[in-house]
Amino acid sequence: MPIIQSVRWSDDGSGVRIVDQRLLPGDLVERELRTLDDVVSAIRTLAVRGAPAIGIAGAMGLVAVLAPNAAAPRDALLAAARSAADAIRATRPTAVNLPCALDRMLACAARVSGDGEALIAALRSEATAILEEDRAMCRRIGEHGVSLLKDGARVMTHCNAGALATGGIGTALAPIYVAAERGLAIEVFVDESRPLLQGSRLTAWELQGAGIPVTVLTDGMGASLMRERAIDLCLVGADRIAANGDVANKIGTYSLAIAARYHDVPFVVAAPTSTVDAASETGSEILIEQRGDEEVTRIGGKQAAPAGVCVYNPAFDVTPADLVAAIVTDRGIHRPPYRFA
Amino acid sequence: MPIIQSVRWSDDGSGVRIVDQRLLPGDLVERELRTLDDVVSAIRTLAVRGAPAIGIAGAMGLVAVLAPNAAAPRDALLAAARSAADAIRATRPTAVNLPCALDRMLACAARVSGDGEALIAALRSEATAILEEDRAMCRRIGEHGVSLLKDGARVMTHCNAGALATGGIGTALAPIYVAAERGLAIEVFVDESRPLLQGSRLTAWELQGAGIPVTVLTDGMGASLMRERAIDLCLVGADRIAANGDVANKIGTYSLAIAARYHDVPFVVAAPTSTVDAASETGSEILIEQRGDEEVTRIGGKQAAPAGVCVYNPAFDVTPADLVAAIVTDRGIHRPPYRFA
Repeated sequence: MPIIQSVRWSDDGSGVRIVDQRLLPGDLVERELRTLDDVVSAIRTLAVRGAPAIGIAGAMGLVAVLAPNAAAPRDALLAAARSAADAIRATRPTAVNLPCALDRMLACAARVSGDGEALIAALRSEATAILEEDRAMCRRIGEHGVSLLKDGARVMTHCNAGALATGGIGTALAPIYVAAERGLAIEVFVDESRPLLQGSRLTAWELQGAGIPVTVLTDGMGASLMRERAIDLCLVGADRIAANGDVANKIGTYSLAIAARYHDVPFVVAAPTSTVDAASETGSEILIEQRGDEEVTRIGGKQAAPAGVCVYNPAFDVTPADLVAAIVTDRGIHRPPYRFA
Repeated sequence: MPIIQSVRWSDDGSGVRIVDQRLLPGDLVERELRTLDDVVSAIRTLAVRGAPAIGIAGAMGLVAVLAPNAAAPRDALLAAARSAADAIRATRPTAVNLPCALDRMLACAARVSGDGEALIAALRSEATAILEEDRAMCRRIGEHGVSLLKDGARVMTHCNAGALATGGIGTALAPIYVAAERGLAIEVFVDESRPLLQGSRLTAWELQGAGIPVTVLTDGMGASLMRERAIDLCLVGADRIAANGDVANKIGTYSLAIAARYHDVPFVVAAPTSTVDAASETGSEILIEQRGDEEVTRIGGKQAAPAGVCVYNPAFDVTPADLVAAIVTDRGIHRPPYRFA
């Protein structure tokens, strides 16, 4: 059961290798990020995506960017770190993982004494720790969440909260991978997740690669599927979770949560504790990234809507806590009423 | 306010001219249907689509196919009519309009006395009547439905139940066109309606052409839009309506109806009386067409899901009557409990 590794150090350790998710499911291409432009562009264009993977790629990318300047004076290197971190941080506004990872890297840099070489070495260890902690966190989410899955369960998911989105076995998909390891037969249904098709392109691809049965549908079909096929559980990831349990996740999640409620299907969110943003009391305080019109108006290079039409294209939506039956984190299974601190 | 005419007789009256809806919104191309293969292929490939337009194109197409054989013996012509009608009828199973229109044409043929020329002339009149009745029906739906629209209303629709789907000004869009004629400011939101994108490609195109403000979104965004923008009304068409008011319509309709209920947005269906299939007591008796995997797995010629993945691709879903606030037909506004005979 080979599960894809989406972000890793390059073989010589000087760059970051990512799976270019824009080319899936057609081509599996790894790209090496070395310059600030490489890192910023990879995150902005969604070559690397998924809140945890972005945090990891940002932290590791910061090391790759700074490493060639190890001989620079310490102060200059610290200034370069802050400046590069700012540029990386500005790429995408919604997920909390990226700013958290970068803050952690800058704190590490400020803490460590010694010359540039020592600084780079410490930053490299810190970024590696962020990656390894994420791997461990995914595993724990999987081990907690697997208790929600019975043998033969039919699970509906959305977008990609899998190995491609993290350093490990994913968040929403982690319980499914653990269940499969334990010999349970799990069947997964994933909607394509327009506009960027992370469901059909990425989740279906990684589950198929891992030998887990998966069926693809369009975003408008989820409710109909729940009515026909007795879905046992909806299991999705999160980009940010407010203190009260409101969940910001890929656009379309909220629609699925409403349909799940209507069909009495438990709607479960799985995400690392780092996704919790305790500074946001409710989901209404979460900034929702608005993306460009072309994602909706052009499909596969073809015009899919008339020129000049207005477009509504938020990247995320907020599912209110009262629709969420459980939130699985690396610390366990949380049940309502939610109170994250 | 030019509203497109989707099906008409060709200028010399010997063929049927349709707008090839597969090429919209990029290119406006009319195609002439003359042979049985032309007609069958145009309906099957969705060059002409929308339940009323299919019925009209089927009836008019039957005339175009038979006309060159006007000199044949009456019995041979009748046999050819039955055989051609069977082939046209077999193209798409869900909408009731196509078999109804063809049955009406065959009944006309059986009723009329005289030679082949007389038969063809009668069939041509009958097909023209079907077109003209549809135009009048659309207009009546619009005039009844406009009472549900206030000045400034924000209306969410799905797929295309507009002029492109009918012989006239549409069904779901008819009240909007009539409102615009009367000087009301109506703003329309339409989801793209994957897999075939009739919302973004067709509805957005025809509304824009008619000067009505329209915004496109993906199918997963409707619920989020209702939460943010206070949609006043959902207004959709129907492919078939059961006696109890259950509504079969383009896949995604049911999901929207559930979201509308959750947000207390009235969910209204507009369709000609001919869409009612009184022989189906409830929606569970309506046959739902399952379409090919490629509609989901390939987008704009590109692979959007891994090769060999399973696909769920029903063309329609059934919205239970209890989610439907009103059904507007050419006869008036029906309210629950519905009882169509």
